[in-house]
Amino acid sequence: MTRHDLRAVNELRPVQIDNNYLMHPEGSVLITVGNTKVICTATIEEKVPGFLRGQGKGWITAEYSMLPRATEQRTRRESSAGKVSGRTMEIQRLIGRALRAVVDLEALGEKTVWIDCDVIQADGGTRTASITGAFVAMTQAIAKLGVDKPFVKFPVTDYLAATSVGKLENIGAVLDLNYVEDSAAQVDMNVIMTGAGEFVELQGTGEEATFSRSELNELLDLGEAGIAQLIEMQKTALGDTANLIGKVEA
Amino acid sequence: MTRHDLRAVNELRPVQIDNNYLMHPEGSVLITVGNTKVICTATIEEKVPGFLRGQGKGWITAEYSMLPRATEQRTRRESSAGKVSGRTMEIQRLIGRALRAVVDLEALGEKTVWIDCDVIQADGGTRTASITGAFVAMTQAIAKLGVDKPFVKFPVTDYLAATSVGKLENIGAVLDLNYVEDSAAQVDMNVIMTGAGEFVELQGTGEEATFSRSELNELLDLGEAGIAQLIEMQKTALGDTANLIGKVEA
Amino acid sequence: MTRHDLRAVNELRPVQIDNNYLMHPEGSVLITVGNTKVICTATIEEKVPGFLRGQGKGWITAEYSMLPRATEQRTRRESSAGKVSGRTMEIQRLIGRALRAVVDLEALGEKTVWIDCDVIQADGGTRTASITGAFVAMTQAIAKLGVDKPFVKFPVTDYLAATSVGKLENIGAVLDLNYVEDSAAQVDMNVIMTGAGEFVELQGTGEEATFSRSELNELLDLGEAGIAQLIEMQKTALGDTANLIGKVEA
Amino acid sequence: MTRHDLRAVNELRPVQIDNNYLMHPEGSVLITVGNTKVICTATIEEKVPGFLRGQGKGWITAEYSMLPRATEQRTRRESSAGKVSGRTMEIQRLIGRALRAVVDLEALGEKTVWIDCDVIQADGGTRTASITGAFVAMTQAIAKLGVDKPFVKFPVTDYLAATSVGKLENIGAVLDLNYVEDSAAQVDMNVIMTGAGEFVELQGTGEEATFSRSELNELLDLGEAGIAQLIEMQKTALGDTANLIGKVEA
Amino acid sequence: MTRHDLRAVNELRPVQIDNNYLMHPEGSVLITVGNTKVICTATIEEKVPGFLRGQGKGWITAEYSMLPRATEQRTRRESSAGKVSGRTMEIQRLIGRALRAVVDLEALGEKTVWIDCDVIQADGGTRTASITGAFVAMTQAIAKLGVDKPFVKFPVTDYLAATSVGKLENIGAVLDLNYVEDSAAQVDMNVIMTGAGEFVELQGTGEEATFSRSELNELLDLGEAGIAQLIEMQKTALGDTANLIGKVEA
Amino acid sequence: MTRHDLRAVNELRPVQIDNNYLMHPEGSVLITVGNTKVICTATIEEKVPGFLRGQGKGWITAEYSMLPRATEQRTRRESSAGKVSGRTMEIQRLIGRALRAVVDLEALGEKTVWIDCDVIQADGGTRTASITGAFVAMTQAIAKLGVDKPFVKFPVTDYLAATSVGKLENIGAVLDLNYVEDSAAQVDMNVIMTGAGEFVELQGTGEEATFSRSELNELLDLGEAGIAQLIEMQKTALGDTANLIGKVEA
Repeated sequence: MTRHDLRAVNELRPVQIDNNYLMHPEGSVLITVGNTKVICTATIEEKVPGFLRGQGKGWITAEYSMLPRATEQRTRRESSAGKVSGRTMEIQRLIGRALRAVVDLEALGEKTVWIDCDVIQADGGTRTASITGAFVAMTQAIAKLGVDKPFVKFPVTDYLAATSVGKLENIGAVLDLNYVEDSAAQVDMNVIMTGAGEFVELQGTGEEATFSRSELNELLDLGEAGIAQLIEMQKTALGDTANLIGKVEA
Repeated sequence: MTRHDLRAVNELRPVQIDNNYLMHPEGSVLITVGNTKVICTATIEEKVPGFLRGQGKGWITAEYSMLPRATEQRTRRESSAGKVSGRTMEIQRLIGRALRAVVDLEALGEKTVWIDCDVIQADGGTRTASITGAFVAMTQAIAKLGVDKPFVKFPVTDYLAATSVGKLENIGAVLDLNYVEDSAAQVDMNVIMTGAGEFVELQGTGEEATFSRSELNELLDLGEAGIAQLIEMQKTALGDTANLIGKVEA
Repeated sequence: MTRHDLRAVNELRPVQIDNNYLMHPEGSVLITVGNTKVICTATIEEKVPGFLRGQGKGWITAEYSMLPRATEQRTRRESSAGKVSGRTMEIQRLIGRALRAVVDLEALGEKTVWIDCDVIQADGGTRTASITGAFVAMTQAIAKLGVDKPFVKFPVTDYLAATSVGKLENIGAVLDLNYVEDSAAQVDMNVIMTGAGEFVELQGTGEEATFSRSELNELLDLGEAGIAQLIEMQKTALGDTANLIGKVEA
Repeated sequence: MTRHDLRAVNELRPVQIDNNYLMHPEGSVLITVGNTKVICTATIEEKVPGFLRGQGKGWITAEYSMLPRATEQRTRRESSAGKVSGRTMEIQRLIGRALRAVVDLEALGEKTVWIDCDVIQADGGTRTASITGAFVAMTQAIAKLGVDKPFVKFPVTDYLAATSVGKLENIGAVLDLNYVEDSAAQVDMNVIMTGAGEFVELQGTGEEATFSRSELNELLDLGEAGIAQLIEMQKTALGDTANLIGKVEA
Repeated sequence: MTRHDLRAVNELRPVQIDNNYLMHPEGSVLITVGNTKVICTATIEEKVPGFLRGQGKGWITAEYSMLPRATEQRTRRESSAGKVSGRTMEIQRLIGRALRAVVDLEALGEKTVWIDCDVIQADGGTRTASITGAFVAMTQAIAKLGVDKPFVKFPVTDYLAATSVGKLENIGAVLDLNYVEDSAAQVDMNVIMTGAGEFVELQGTGEEATFSRSELNELLDLGEAGIAQLIEMQKTALGDTANLIGKVEA
Repeated sequence: MTRHDLRAVNELRPVQIDNNYLMHPEGSVLITVGNTKVICTATIEEKVPGFLRGQGKGWITAEYSMLPRATEQRTRRESSAGKVSGRTMEIQRLIGRALRAVVDLEALGEKTVWIDCDVIQADGGTRTASITGAFVAMTQAIAKLGVDKPFVKFPVTDYLAATSVGKLENIGAVLDLNYVEDSAAQVDMNVIMTGAGEFVELQGTGEEATFSRSELNELLDLGEAGIAQLIEMQKTALGDTANLIGKVEA
């Protein structure tokens, strides 16, 4: 059996990263992964949350939301509901945690980078697209900081991208699930990796199902290969700014 | 003195209306007015709010929001704040009320049209751009309803568009204020009119200032002319669907 | 056809303004307009909101509420609902904005005047009665401030009053709509004007209807005449304090 | 030492009960106890809360609030705070519970009586004034129910009134504390009794102090005498309606 | 007739007070009264609420909650409901107020003692068990404060314990009602007393019933005797710490 | 270097599972893992959430909370804060999802099992202890259901337990981290597995660090061995009920 959109099991959907998409934010990206579209912005704030004050370290925090008609059925706004859903909270905690893994918070100094990921159109993989796009917006915003007052060490230490892998009945392990595949998957795993090929986060869930050690290994192989391709696209989108990543002036 | 962006006092900013912008909603538009960009969607729901149930009439309701970095400074999400601001509520009530003035709710039948206006980039005039764009998205969505089950009378009875006019120191009355002008204006007025040239809503406010009857008349002249141009662009964006507006099969 | 309460089209309902109605507030008024009764109080606070701090300017802000049985059907308390409705927010923003138009905030100095309008009994026109009553309470409270430490320029620069006008089927344009008229009106317009006869705010709405330029002019004529009468009653209610309005010691 | 307002220790403040104070509610009272003024209304709703449905019994429930400037310092509205304070909840639970003690809920049938007590001006004893006034508003509203469809047994079985008693330093036990006395009291006790002289509720609190059994007895004697006087005033305010209380047609 | 669990009318249920029940809190108790089990903890915070700042006085505040399955039917969590119920607020205000009556807040100094009472299993009398247990946890925590920096006057000035009494049909006045008795009681009264036998708080409620002066006296006699027994158990649980209560170094 | 509590790298903390801990719930467990103590209860509700109604399937949902002094510093109650934190939401979603992986929801029928995990004392690993304990409480509650009306297929299809593994500086991979270890860990991974040795969920996070594929394998080996021991303890705690797991009557 083949995937319903005819992709190979190890094939990403078409990806596009439009850098500097909006006029106001310090960093802004429109990332398109198949039919999934997310606006990612990065905002620099000249202070840190209370628990970090006075330690000379910065912070990265993220918020995530979907427009009501990003989805097939209209989703009620969380501002109308008066509270943020568990799913949203889980995703925004994940985005922030992942980005912090490739930022030297001491090199950043006492600043907060606010990441906003707003899904304009959803077709599966919105959280991984958000991370991949937010990395570019964040790097752009931090680079802008360095223009006025160059960093001794550039705070972004490595690339970071994310994709999903999963197990489909009759097909097996596949890369980059769209919404139809995601709904049917027996196992769904988000993989977040660095340019150096290390894991930052691994979240695998059997959906009313389970998975064995060897299935896990098959899924990780697919994820690794997909992320390497995504990082190439981030490099292209960043242009010269890409050269700053991991750079230490000495 | 001239306007800082060199426009004539009676000149609109460049306007673009991208119809069918998204894959999921029944109606969707990206409207661009200068640097202001708003995604407007229309969703059909097969029921009405409690106070209308069983009366054979439909309803139009609207929600409005800004992405956090639509603005120069990041705005806190209303979902994080846990409540919707007074400004947002006022705008979404205005959008719904205005659209209802050109819809025959009995011809629509027991359905609700949900309008969502999400500001992607803000540079003044977001509420009037929302109304102008939402009219197109709403008309498109209602037309889609009629494909399966043609209306005896098409529910949209006339065009509807909105713009702002205001009074600037040393310049006087101007049409379509951008953010810089809006912040400096002594009088700020939103004008909403139909294709027939009638008023639907008029909201004029002296900002720590007042205005005379003759100044009011000058502002209304500018607004009328601007709205006539906006309605021409709505016609173009709607294509053949435009022919349905005001149509009664008999 | 005549109005159901037999008033002439240009006739206000009986108005009464009881000044110094309560023992605690710096300014307090019970305003009665027909069967509509609103308690308006003014409280002086010796600080300003964050966005004004250190600028030497004051602020006027308003809150509005209805007792649950001010209305024919009991209205749920907004404290029980846990949030303030859109209608309430719109009204309180309007009251504050209107009053600020006749106050020189620099002459007031770094103080906030809190206006509270609580509707005890509602029969149409509660927002315009609130503005007319709140003007008296505010002026009284500011005058009290000046007793201890006289103002160089009295911060209240002109009178301010509000009324509604509207268009009724078979009757046409009328002044000061009560609840029955308001529910049936095709066009409903709130007019707020100064003692000098300038507009401060104009909010006209077609209720599933529209209005022409000449109808607008007819409505504005009625509003102007009504407001002139209301301002005379404010003068009487204020007594000697009325002499301070617009006064500049030099 | 004497009380600061020169009252005898067993003397109530001047009490006035204006019945039928508002046009809309089924029952409405303005009760004045000294400088304390409370509007009490009673609303009949033709259904009961879920836990009582289908049992043929009615319910009495109460809400209590203060206008922001009922107090010397402005109190923040609970609707702005987004939640009802512990003090408010405690008072409204008390009012409802007390009134239910003199109502035969089966005789009332499947109806809810909503009591609203809104304090216009506060000078101590607002909760006991609320109960005393609410009893009259409730009785009036229930009597109105009986006009169309007479009760076999009138649901209000006895009078109910409330007052406070307390212990003041250097003065001892006193009746009906005003705000100044209440703030200084070592012991504060609310007493709620029926026309038959039975207790419905007793809430005595040592404020960073304690009280003995004999002090308790002294306080109860004062309370009993005060309540007997309040009930006489309720009778006068109710007029002919007073004859219905406790009445059984047979 | 006898009580359904065969206790004498003046007999407490079996009581156990496990002191130092948890590893983290400064004071912690598991109190068991029949089948009612409450974990009471005391936390010292080195600051006071705003209204007390700079006065050299401390504060005692309490929070109360039930695990969802402390009750026979699962109770919805107040965190899910998004608000604290009226019953909970009333109880936590009562616990704090009662404890403050036996603490010299000046001797405590500018510290807050947070009391947390979490009901693990409920079978009637949870609020009185909470007070009796919280007294022990609080005393333990305050004693720990004194180890490092001995108090001139130990802030806890006397013992404090609470129990319930009530009136049951066919049985009359009884001590320490369990859930079955509480649900059936005609009168329910919580009594809080000190080691010196003085009242701190008395809350008696007729549940759709009333009570006479002589019934009140009968209930108070039972309560007094029960509290004396509870205080003996507190002494045992506190061990040597008991000697500090009421102690003044001079 | 050795672990600070002298355990071997592959050694669990002492575990105790007290079954039937409380009187009211259908299933209840106190699970102790080292100093971590969690009360887990299971409640059967005879209906399912809206999205499942009429499908003949059941549902498992979980709530998680900590007593304020389960932690070294007092944690603010989520009911006081008025909202549930992101961390809490993430944990309760995880618990529910994991348990559903070993329950045949169709065999359960249209019932909801509510799981409540309340942490009494926290010392690391509260979410994995919650899952391990909740499995026992859930199985007990479902078994109780089967007593009255035996299941054709027992809905619990396999065992389920969870533990944490992590990477410590100078020590490397370790099993079952306590709070001190968890705070210092470079990589932290929660592993949830079935009795058959399959994964249900894997959540690995580099805390401002990353991990390689071979480190991942080392961590998984430790987790697998730990879970096998936990499942043995669940068997003992369940007694005869253990025999029902995976049983199909045929």
